Amino acid sequence: MTKYNIDVTLTQTKKEKPNASELAFGKVFTDHMFIMDYTEGQGWHDPRIIPYQPLTLDPASMIFHYGQSVFEGLKAYVTKKEQVLLFRPDENFKRLNKSNDRLCIPHLDEELALEALKTLIQVDRDWIPNAEGTSLYIRPFIISTEPYLGVSPSDRYQFIIILSPVASYYKEGIAPVRIAVENEFVRSVAGGTGSAKTGGNYAASLKAQQLSGTKGYSQVLWLDGVERKYIEEVGSMNIFFKVDGEVITPSINGSILEGITRKSVIELLKHWGIPVSERKISIAEIKEAYAAGKLEEAFGTGTAAVISPVGELFWQNEGMSINGGKTGEVTKKLYDTLTGIQSGMVEDHFNWCIEVK
Amino acid sequence: MTKYNIDVTLTQTKKEKPNASELAFGKVFTDHMFIMDYTEGQGWHDPRIIPYQPLTLDPASMIFHYGQSVFEGLKAYVTKKEQVLLFRPDENFKRLNKSNDRLCIPHLDEELALEALKTLIQVDRDWIPNAEGTSLYIRPFIISTEPYLGVSPSDRYQFIIILSPVASYYKEGIAPVRIAVENEFVRSVAGGTGSAKTGGNYAASLKAQQLSGTKGYSQVLWLDGVERKYIEEVGSMNIFFKVDGEVITPSINGSILEGITRKSVIELLKHWGIPVSERKISIAEIKEAYAAGKLEEAFGTGTAAVISPVGELFWQNEGMSINGGKTGEVTKKLYDTLTGIQSGMVEDHFNWCIEVK
Ligand SMILES: Cc1ncc(COP(=O)(O)O)c(C=O)c1O
Ligand SMILES: Cc1ncc(COP(=O)(O)O)c(C=O)c1O
Repeated sequence: MTKYNIDVTLTQTKKEKPNASELAFGKVFTDHMFIMDYTEGQGWHDPRIIPYQPLTLDPASMIFHYGQSVFEGLKAYVTKKEQVLLFRPDENFKRLNKSNDRLCIPHLDEELALEALKTLIQVDRDWIPNAEGTSLYIRPFIISTEPYLGVSPSDRYQFIIILSPVASYYKEGIAPVRIAVENEFVRSVAGGTGSAKTGGNYAASLKAQQLSGTKGYSQVLWLDGVERKYIEEVGSMNIFFKVDGEVITPSINGSILEGITRKSVIELLKHWGIPVSERKISIAEIKEAYAAGKLEEAFGTGTAAVISPVGELFWQNEGMSINGGKTGEVTKKLYDTLTGIQSGMVEDHFNWCIEVK
Repeated sequence: MTKYNIDVTLTQTKKEKPNASELAFGKVFTDHMFIMDYTEGQGWHDPRIIPYQPLTLDPASMIFHYGQSVFEGLKAYVTKKEQVLLFRPDENFKRLNKSNDRLCIPHLDEELALEALKTLIQVDRDWIPNAEGTSLYIRPFIISTEPYLGVSPSDRYQFIIILSPVASYYKEGIAPVRIAVENEFVRSVAGGTGSAKTGGNYAASLKAQQLSGTKGYSQVLWLDGVERKYIEEVGSMNIFFKVDGEVITPSINGSILEGITRKSVIELLKHWGIPVSERKISIAEIKEAYAAGKLEEAFGTGTAAVISPVGELFWQNEGMSINGGKTGEVTKKLYDTLTGIQSGMVEDHFNWCIEVK
């Protein structure tokens, strides 16, 4: 029992842990999970850690029909000194509550959520891999569980945290990815749910991703849904460009996710004195910069891949090769610094990491 | 066993059926459900009817995270002659496959789905209520069940059908509803998922509906996400207006659902020789018609409510009272005819109903 009365039931049958060399992304889960219920009138109750196990839900549960759900994604790392670090977890729980607002899901106590996560990680401490590039991926999520087929907010929810030891998200690792600009499909539009981390945004993205995959692109770059001109973000990453010495990224506009890696990158660049700005960026502007030889680097930012260099950007039947298809200098420095801070190898001036004790 | 080898396991413990007077919408479910699995490589397999029971799913199942899901809604009626009728079920399964396309879910055999539904209804025949306005609401749905946290189409799915005896969807019954035009939130945009029946569209709609509910409106009228000028549809209904003798409804544009009731209404109106057209309709045009005294009727169309008269439309701080807040003549005739055909009281010239034998 902890301050928040988190009940802990340990498993009787521990699973075998995967070899570091066999780690994939998000396919293997640890021995335990955290779960907490919400019931209207009673609020959030019964926080508990239990053996990792299936959920048992009425087939009429709203999550199966009306998609009322939110989630988060963050990582824990174990350092050379055997410390366990979480990267800015308070930001994730803050964003989870923002997503809750948009999806009409009751707020969580962010402190309790963090405490729950820490307790769970302590219980499954042995599962955190320590080879380079590996980490423990953390997936907090909330689902609506009222068995009711009317379209209205659920009166019951479950908040769950599961953990998965992972290698890099992209098979390519830090190797540059090829990304295609999406012209037909739209991920989100202002007034929609794009700035929330909710399932429907990802379901909406599958088709475009599948089509671009058949053409050899690993992700799509979304344009805005209104004018189909302005750059939004990539599948599960925000996007940055370095143009003529300045790093630019689309501003927060209501339809893109406010990435925590994005925020950290902006703070790092400012700290380093590298010009950085958030503004509307049209795809035409990027093409012009490319034609003028001024498109120096491009990279995506997100928890899963941390920093993902873009080696080629495809638009209007033409591939723009960026930095000769190689990882740019600023991109590399950001990757090294961020993963360094996250894994305790680089000093954490910003106090971004929280130790799990 | 049937032609499609649908295995049937009957329940040992039948539930008590609700009184006709106590029926709500979508809260009570019958004794059995249909379920069928999809596994990559193997296709859809093991169609079976089993006692209504909870689903047991890994917490990493994609449905809980990325919202890859589709659903349908239709109704069965029992006639005075004890026939059981389904209203245009082939259209629902056709639309389910269209939704599947958009959501990257493998197609279903529509004939098998219909056979499954008929078999299930036969098994739970006793559950179809027969009081006026009541019916058996049918909810076919598909969920993605692969336990994997990567954003990509699932390699496993379940197709499920559950049944719920229902009264009218709206507490008001055929009484006119008050609807507010939504100016801030957007349901969908061309290139998005609006024309598919997938959970995310409904999750996205909750916030606007909740806010309008606090102001006394039961539903919102969505405008297009690009110009915020053109009328789209209501929460779970398409919308029609009668202006100066002509019935008009927004055309299918990629962001609204192609309703089966909508289609039937258009066919009925044509049959009756009442002018009807599908076209872009701006909210300003409706307001002008109202000001000129030409906005004669308005109604929503959808399986749940069938025909729902709109008594008041609220836009820009002003309520437009339609037909003095009473059900219009064409609206009433459509309601009577459609519910009449569905329940076997009015002759089915169009062969819309299929009997379950
Ligand atoms: C749509 C989308 N954009 C951007 C990001 C990046 O956000 P973060 O840096 O917080 O992981 C994510 C999440 O990982 C995402 O799902
Ligand atoms: C968004 C939406 N629009 C319209 C409709 C009406 O479609 P149908 O007449 O096929 O029930 C529905 C479904 O019921 C819906 O969910």
